[in-house]
Amino acid sequence: MSVALIVQKYGGTSVADPERMRRVARHVADARGEGHDLVVVVSAMGKATDNLIQLARQVSADPPGREMDMLLTTGERISMALLCMALHDAGVEAVSFTGSQVGIITDTTHTRAKILEVRGDRVRDALSAGKVAVVAGFQGVSTDREITTLGRGGSDTTAVALAAAFGADACEIYTDVTGVFSADPRLVPRARKLAWLQFDEMLEMAGAGSKVLALRAVEFARNHEVPIHVRSSFTWEPGTWVSDQRPPAGAIREDGAMEDPVISGVVHDASEAKVTVLSVPDRPGVSAAIFEPLAAGGVNVDMIVQNTSTAGTTDLSFTCPTTDLATAERIVRAVATEIGAGGVTHDDAIAKVSLVGAGMKSSPGIAAKMFRVLADHGVNIEMISTSTIRISVVVAAPMLQTAVRALHTAFDLDADADYSAPLPERS
Amino acid sequence: MSVALIVQKYGGTSVADPERMRRVARHVADARGEGHDLVVVVSAMGKATDNLIQLARQVSADPPGREMDMLLTTGERISMALLCMALHDAGVEAVSFTGSQVGIITDTTHTRAKILEVRGDRVRDALSAGKVAVVAGFQGVSTDREITTLGRGGSDTTAVALAAAFGADACEIYTDVTGVFSADPRLVPRARKLAWLQFDEMLEMAGAGSKVLALRAVEFARNHEVPIHVRSSFTWEPGTWVSDQRPPAGAIREDGAMEDPVISGVVHDASEAKVTVLSVPDRPGVSAAIFEPLAAGGVNVDMIVQNTSTAGTTDLSFTCPTTDLATAERIVRAVATEIGAGGVTHDDAIAKVSLVGAGMKSSPGIAAKMFRVLADHGVNIEMISTSTIRISVVVAAPMLQTAVRALHTAFDLDADADYSAPLPERS
Repeated sequence: MSVALIVQKYGGTSVADPERMRRVARHVADARGEGHDLVVVVSAMGKATDNLIQLARQVSADPPGREMDMLLTTGERISMALLCMALHDAGVEAVSFTGSQVGIITDTTHTRAKILEVRGDRVRDALSAGKVAVVAGFQGVSTDREITTLGRGGSDTTAVALAAAFGADACEIYTDVTGVFSADPRLVPRARKLAWLQFDEMLEMAGAGSKVLALRAVEFARNHEVPIHVRSSFTWEPGTWVSDQRPPAGAIREDGAMEDPVISGVVHDASEAKVTVLSVPDRPGVSAAIFEPLAAGGVNVDMIVQNTSTAGTTDLSFTCPTTDLATAERIVRAVATEIGAGGVTHDDAIAKVSLVGAGMKSSPGIAAKMFRVLADHGVNIEMISTSTIRISVVVAAPMLQTAVRALHTAFDLDADADYSAPLPERS
Repeated sequence: MSVALIVQKYGGTSVADPERMRRVARHVADARGEGHDLVVVVSAMGKATDNLIQLARQVSADPPGREMDMLLTTGERISMALLCMALHDAGVEAVSFTGSQVGIITDTTHTRAKILEVRGDRVRDALSAGKVAVVAGFQGVSTDREITTLGRGGSDTTAVALAAAFGADACEIYTDVTGVFSADPRLVPRARKLAWLQFDEMLEMAGAGSKVLALRAVEFARNHEVPIHVRSSFTWEPGTWVSDQRPPAGAIREDGAMEDPVISGVVHDASEAKVTVLSVPDRPGVSAAIFEPLAAGGVNVDMIVQNTSTAGTTDLSFTCPTTDLATAERIVRAVATEIGAGGVTHDDAIAKVSLVGAGMKSSPGIAAKMFRVLADHGVNIEMISTSTIRISVVVAAPMLQTAVRALHTAFDLDADADYSAPLPERS
């Protein structure tokens, strides 16, 4: 590979302690030694962010967003300063920048700000001076000059945004798994690592519950055509490329990977619950009456399914994160009374299983085959939702493993040998 | 007390955990309830700064100052955000500011920057809006727009600088001792709390080893005539005022305190070592030849004593922190050879004992009495140094407690009853 500008992002487990920090520094030093220009984005160390959230809860029932952002941004600042020190110790000139110092300008929405602009002058100056720029992930400064955070997965978003702003050749996301797999290796020992995924596939996988990359970061990468390379900071082996262009020759390892499969992976999500509104009067406006207050209440609704009307009423179900369930039920019960629905039930022992694959568009019958496989394994389907390259079903939680394994085998995804991988991290 | 602008500073033990943080919030809420305008300066929680320094050492043998400052400033940012949350929970409107957000402009000397200017516009705006301003201690932003720290005791300096900039009526320094004592209560159970000290006395006590207030902060307070009130965040009782003006009536508790004593306290410092250069040729320039390279080498020289010349040579001794001893000896040995001195010895088992009191100026014979008392208790004096309101002697370390107790009693400082106080903190 010729000399390039590369953005590298290291997640929390990659910089969890001084020993890991020094390993990362050595890897950065090696890449620098090959002549590459490097922008390195870091997450908070290990459980640092969770610990800070815990502290906040111990002093306040409802911490103001502005102070929460000030609190949480310290985690990445600690990481970036320590990594610069470790790089200095490894003989690499490096300089750290907070989101504010980089000029990552966001809107004023604390705890989940959106990036409006990346100025980046100080980073460009550092690169011109031959230095590695180390940037605190997850943070920016608002148009009101307040410190903001980008929400869950924010460090991935920082990395992709910087790669887009600087026209980087690649954005490497280092984590504690070796790439994106055809299924969660904890459920499916024969899951295989995918060498290359297109943005739409990765988006559908992230939306369907894959935790390897944050959805927002993938959207950002697609919109700005930033090739992502997800890989391990423990084994350093080639990982999974996410790009609409085929990765450069030699950049991907083809062994164990399939050529253009119909289905790329089986993704599951056990973190949601289902709410059903019974006997909803079948007239215009009732759906809006239900989902507008849910949106206003901050409930993150995922799947929505409405049955065909019989006798002038219909049942309407939706899923949302289990953490939103209490709020959702409270809101929906009030609405149900107003609109004269028959009642509200919920089920938090569900799991969503999704098939994702770009090849689905040109391969009819995938859904039928999926339903048949599940039926043959005694798995009952409670809800169905589809996109052009994804089919998702909701099943009872205890059937999750059976469903995922059966589909993985039936769609020819099983690897010849077991791949084992550690738990995925959230940045 | 009428409505006032008060700067309150809380040290590390005062905000060591969420429970203490909430106690501080209640105290701030009470002061706010009395109508006072409040600027609250916080240190890092408990051992947070030490833990960060430890992390830095684990990744780098010689961390760059710029990154060290970025790392350490996170400690106070965590504290200020959490305290704002706790205040919010206590129903007090509060807003946090980093040193940079306050506009604490420093020079560019990382890890021990000097404050050049306090802009403070955002703090003034917050106060005008009826809010409590919570400020991260120990930090500023340099004229190069880099994050800097103010060195040891930096949070005290921040508090005093803000009190000076805003013309505060008082600067309250909350810590884990109830005030400044006539001696360290760990050595002298009958040490008594001093109700009021003048700046020069406090300066001499800080210089002689008292850890209650940072020397720089006291200098700053004297130069800007900021009355300091050192008090406990555990008992909240009235503490010690440091001011050249007598504190307002009712502000000090006179019981157990003396009226204008000759001696205010006996201060000790067991953290230094002594270096002696033997048989130094007695000619112009030799002292400079010794102390210039020591200064250049960063050795913090305290006392210097040179004996009268006999037979054309003299012995020259100085003290410095034990942590600087190795460096000092290396430098001095080289110089000793150059200038033809007889040799170099050192002794790290020494202690410095000082008497401090503004009344000393008008009371002759204090030194003579001090030497007599020590002699009567079998304490040999190795070095002597004096100022107008301080006499310091160096004694063998094992004699420290004997010396301090004997002087405390002989100069009528013993309280009628035992005061016990926890260990002093460093901010």
